[in-house]
Amino acid sequence: MNKLVIVGTVAFDAIETPFGKTDKILGGAATYIGLSASNFDINGAIVSVVGGDFPEEYITMLKEKGLDVSGLEIVPEGKTFFWSGKYHNDMNTRDTLATELNVLADFNPIVPEDYKDAEVVMLGNLHPIVQMGVINQMKNPKLVVLDTMNFWMDCALPELMEVIKKVDVITINDEEARQLSGEYSLVNASKKIMSMGPKYVVIKKGEHGALLFHGEDMFYAPALPLAEVFDPTGAGDTFAGGFTGFLAKTEDYSFENMKNAIIYGSALASFCVEKFGTERILDVSKEEIHNRLHQFKSLTQFDIKIT
Amino acid sequence: MNKLVIVGTVAFDAIETPFGKTDKILGGAATYIGLSASNFDINGAIVSVVGGDFPEEYITMLKEKGLDVSGLEIVPEGKTFFWSGKYHNDMNTRDTLATELNVLADFNPIVPEDYKDAEVVMLGNLHPIVQMGVINQMKNPKLVVLDTMNFWMDCALPELMEVIKKVDVITINDEEARQLSGEYSLVNASKKIMSMGPKYVVIKKGEHGALLFHGEDMFYAPALPLAEVFDPTGAGDTFAGGFTGFLAKTEDYSFENMKNAIIYGSALASFCVEKFGTERILDVSKEEIHNRLHQFKSLTQFDIKIT
Repeated sequence: MNKLVIVGTVAFDAIETPFGKTDKILGGAATYIGLSASNFDINGAIVSVVGGDFPEEYITMLKEKGLDVSGLEIVPEGKTFFWSGKYHNDMNTRDTLATELNVLADFNPIVPEDYKDAEVVMLGNLHPIVQMGVINQMKNPKLVVLDTMNFWMDCALPELMEVIKKVDVITINDEEARQLSGEYSLVNASKKIMSMGPKYVVIKKGEHGALLFHGEDMFYAPALPLAEVFDPTGAGDTFAGGFTGFLAKTEDYSFENMKNAIIYGSALASFCVEKFGTERILDVSKEEIHNRLHQFKSLTQFDIKIT
Repeated sequence: MNKLVIVGTVAFDAIETPFGKTDKILGGAATYIGLSASNFDINGAIVSVVGGDFPEEYITMLKEKGLDVSGLEIVPEGKTFFWSGKYHNDMNTRDTLATELNVLADFNPIVPEDYKDAEVVMLGNLHPIVQMGVINQMKNPKLVVLDTMNFWMDCALPELMEVIKKVDVITINDEEARQLSGEYSLVNASKKIMSMGPKYVVIKKGEHGALLFHGEDMFYAPALPLAEVFDPTGAGDTFAGGFTGFLAKTEDYSFENMKNAIIYGSALASFCVEKFGTERILDVSKEEIHNRLHQFKSLTQFDIKIT
């Protein structure tokens, strides 16, 4: 019931912003997705790989959040995936200072037996071949969500197109949607992408919000204008975790319900950026999330006044 | 009753897009603002200047739309302001090919006696000294709306700051809000700008919608994702015309009502871009506008679902 399979990186991040700098802290797409999804009463499993340098206490923390880690492979003689980035003053763009694949280079995901019947699968951003490997192990998922990026469009397009055929939802940013479809208008881009496989297209526009397309329907969720963006790392994956966590909990994959999933994802992402790394989403409360949902609602709601 | 004073350019535009090219067609901020505002049952006056080359039929057309043109000065031996621009393939950015001030260089606006008691004033984008000249002629306006741009921040900042002190609403884009305030966060930028004079800040984000700030309140109106953007010329001014036209009609300058004004402005702007120049807003019907309002509402509306 309410099972969610999450595949992605579990990593060390070293982050530099105008506000400060961290050494190696906990990061990785699957980490953020999992922690975000754990805000819902679901049965989530992380499928990933780490090295012998990955602290036991992080694994314990994931388990305490209710996440299954039997699919989190540990390679004792290996090193955990490492990413280091530096954000510009505007906090919107960043430079990658280092990417060390380490154990990720040979990652061959194994979905735990108990989770092969999960209804919802969140394919975090990884090589499409690895993502396909997970799809092939699932019995009959109801909703497969794909996150990808322009890097794979440049370097592994045929493999990516094979994965895209098999998923229900794709989440990409506006530039990526334009690159993938060859269309400038996001309406036309999403129509073209829907013809490639996914019935739903989520276009993440960062500080400008997110668009959901399905057939002829559209939904626009704003991003909450914030006084401070402390660390944007993981915001997109936090969004994905809220999105899939909500859907796994409610088991309703309609367009109407997906709007709510988008709003939850956006609300959780707005917490993520308030502190370094995973710090904020580790301790966000149900009450805070509900207040944030109300903030989102009052941000865009209006009644039509004819004059 | 419901009087609106509109000051801005009335011009010839020559526009080139990937879809086609025009010779001199009707343009200018005050033209777009006026035509947009004329969708409301109001008493609007255009305060501007044109040359002897300005066709009588354009003036007749403005009058037929219910606009007062007694403040539209004609300089018989002069030439009308001319702008020529070329849009890039993405239709988002454009190059200015020519700007010929012509009679605008000596523009000294004279507000018609009958309109000095107007409640709403729309100061279209012009030199701040010219905008101040209009403010000084008004008796006791309830709402003065200022449109400006980074050009005046670069070249006439002290004069612009004097105008900003005296207005109720400022409309600028996100880059301009950041430049004016020195803040990156739009929340902080608008707070700073509100301390300079205006109680309301409207941040126009083009294809990403518009934000309205007032005290601690925020409202986010989306831009309608469109299949085709044929010609973006005048969209911002069409927005301003819808915004001020609605406010002049409803005579309610509260934050709540201003949300509706933003939505009307956005809806009208979404029509403007469908054809070259003023063509589309010249013939948009009440029914089409109402349908478009409903499209905007369904684009962002959702009910909170707690799980």
